[in-house]
Amino acid sequence: VHLTRTPSAPDSLLSFARASEPALRKLLEEKVRSASALPIDLTPSFERLAEYVLRGGKRLRGALCLLGCAAGGGAEQDAFPAALGLELFHAYLLVHDDFMDRDTERRGGPTLHVALARKESIARSAAVGAVAEHTAGSLAVLSGSLLQAWALEQIFSSPVAPERVLAAGKMVARALGEVTLGQVLDVAAPLIPELPRDAALKIEEMKTGSYTFELPLTLGALLAGASLETHAALSAYALPLGQAFQIADDLLGTFGDIGQTGKSAGNDLREGKKTLIVLHALQVSRGADLETLRAGLGNEGLSEDKLEQLREILRRVGAERFARDEAERLCAEAEKALETNAIPGAVAEELRAIARYSVRRQK
Amino acid sequence: VHLTRTPSAPDSLLSFARASEPALRKLLEEKVRSASALPIDLTPSFERLAEYVLRGGKRLRGALCLLGCAAGGGAEQDAFPAALGLELFHAYLLVHDDFMDRDTERRGGPTLHVALARKESIARSAAVGAVAEHTAGSLAVLSGSLLQAWALEQIFSSPVAPERVLAAGKMVARALGEVTLGQVLDVAAPLIPELPRDAALKIEEMKTGSYTFELPLTLGALLAGASLETHAALSAYALPLGQAFQIADDLLGTFGDIGQTGKSAGNDLREGKKTLIVLHALQVSRGADLETLRAGLGNEGLSEDKLEQLREILRRVGAERFARDEAERLCAEAEKALETNAIPGAVAEELRAIARYSVRRQK
Repeated sequence: VHLTRTPSAPDSLLSFARASEPALRKLLEEKVRSASALPIDLTPSFERLAEYVLRGGKRLRGALCLLGCAAGGGAEQDAFPAALGLELFHAYLLVHDDFMDRDTERRGGPTLHVALARKESIARSAAVGAVAEHTAGSLAVLSGSLLQAWALEQIFSSPVAPERVLAAGKMVARALGEVTLGQVLDVAAPLIPELPRDAALKIEEMKTGSYTFELPLTLGALLAGASLETHAALSAYALPLGQAFQIADDLLGTFGDIGQTGKSAGNDLREGKKTLIVLHALQVSRGADLETLRAGLGNEGLSEDKLEQLREILRRVGAERFARDEAERLCAEAEKALETNAIPGAVAEELRAIARYSVRRQK
Repeated sequence: VHLTRTPSAPDSLLSFARASEPALRKLLEEKVRSASALPIDLTPSFERLAEYVLRGGKRLRGALCLLGCAAGGGAEQDAFPAALGLELFHAYLLVHDDFMDRDTERRGGPTLHVALARKESIARSAAVGAVAEHTAGSLAVLSGSLLQAWALEQIFSSPVAPERVLAAGKMVARALGEVTLGQVLDVAAPLIPELPRDAALKIEEMKTGSYTFELPLTLGALLAGASLETHAALSAYALPLGQAFQIADDLLGTFGDIGQTGKSAGNDLREGKKTLIVLHALQVSRGADLETLRAGLGNEGLSEDKLEQLREILRRVGAERFARDEAERLCAEAEKALETNAIPGAVAEELRAIARYSVRRQK
């Protein structure tokens, strides 16, 4: 039995979600309006895109950007456009990721390449009917790239000294390269026979870890002109927490409740993702358990019954427990990094709440 | 008979191509070296990517960036990193475009999604064999996004005042949005029944026109801190020339020589692209000619004989002549915009040579 209490979303997350919603809506509605003036009226596809972005999510990255700024003594409005930019940036990565993973659901609705697979979803003047899979995929990739361009525009509009905005741009360009590389590795991984455990974990880290915590926090700190000590403390908090967040994601992707996560649990098992949970289980399982795991992992046609059988094994051999303990250990390490004068007490308290929430969340 | 002399590449193009080659090679070789230290050794795929970028091209955009900088009185080294960045940026767009158009050849070699369709082209530790089409496509899209991130890093490293670099970043982000939108329209266009002629031409313009001439020239001018007059003159030159360049591209895609262009001529006809040539021909053709055109355009299985039959009609009804005349008219308009004190004489002379070359080139 698993006794850890599930915390509700911390105040800083809820308050940024409330503040960003109308701002993102306004920005996207302007884009939708501009779509009707194009040589082809793309209003329907821009509406799909806006709906995808506004469908929600935790708004974690934007909130962290504001907290990073607060940690460096900056005002909220200095980091607000960049925080919106990071949410658009995140949506861009999700759209491309969904396409590459051929996922059909995200945040409780269709992924963008699925939504764009009908002609009437693309342009006002298009006939009603289905679109070739390759075309829908291409349009989704391009829609993601549009989000990325809009994200950059937001970040560049930060109302602080040009030197700081420029440094922010450089940081984002570097992060863009790193997260893309993580995604390349993720797509390439299934082509490698017997991928070593360390390589698999490192790839997971590159894919989400650094851009989820370190980028938003240090971007906010940079916009505030924070001290080196503050930057260092935020990084020391972000690195283990990024890993812990990834493990929590894996737990949800394996044992999660579709009603809460908005995407089918067990997808990770069907895709044969080399998560910490699976890697640990493969290491400690023997006999029939090991055979069942080997036969089932990566089998896209797994029934719900078969999935549950795999989950049973993962629980029985202690892989779920192992992953939860590892996430808690990393979370404690992150919290420890906040014990410094370089981060104001109120900010540290919010970051502690975010750490616990990130690791114990149900979605 | 077509009597216009084909000019050889202008000095400014040749000299930038010579200077940029070792710089791009060094940058890409560093990326290749870094690939061996990744959790999966991606050396082979980075080599494919480097080879794709170094395979050549006119290096027009980089050369224009240096000329824009010179027009504003700046030094060459101020714009050189941005010029390299624009070449990487262009390569990024080509990689994505190749994937979306399912093209197999570019600059006389395989497109990236074709090159990455073998496991041994991706990672050192991968088994030899074929890769699923979707996976190869995903890896090509991601490789393109890597080029884009590296492009931004180059542009942000421009050795001029931060205010100017920041303004350059904003300009590039806006251009990124515009060119992506052009590409969305290009992919969506075949879904629209009876696309109006003006819409088709506007899409062609959005897709290549502005980022080929206006972006590089004004980016260079911006890095040099050029006057408003210089910016205006460069834009007045760039806009008609962008359209003329696109028409020249269409002529090559319809009547070009594969030995020179590096990609199969007639592709535009097989894809049913609504170029100025085709739109004009559909307007002026009658009877059997019109029927043959309607039946042949957009037919992917067209034989070489059938292609030649279509080209015959396009020539006979005057569509080729019409397009060449239109390109020449736009070229003259561009040259006229250079008759101003806002652009130094030597720079104007180079820009004139580039205008003629862009319109009359054979590749």
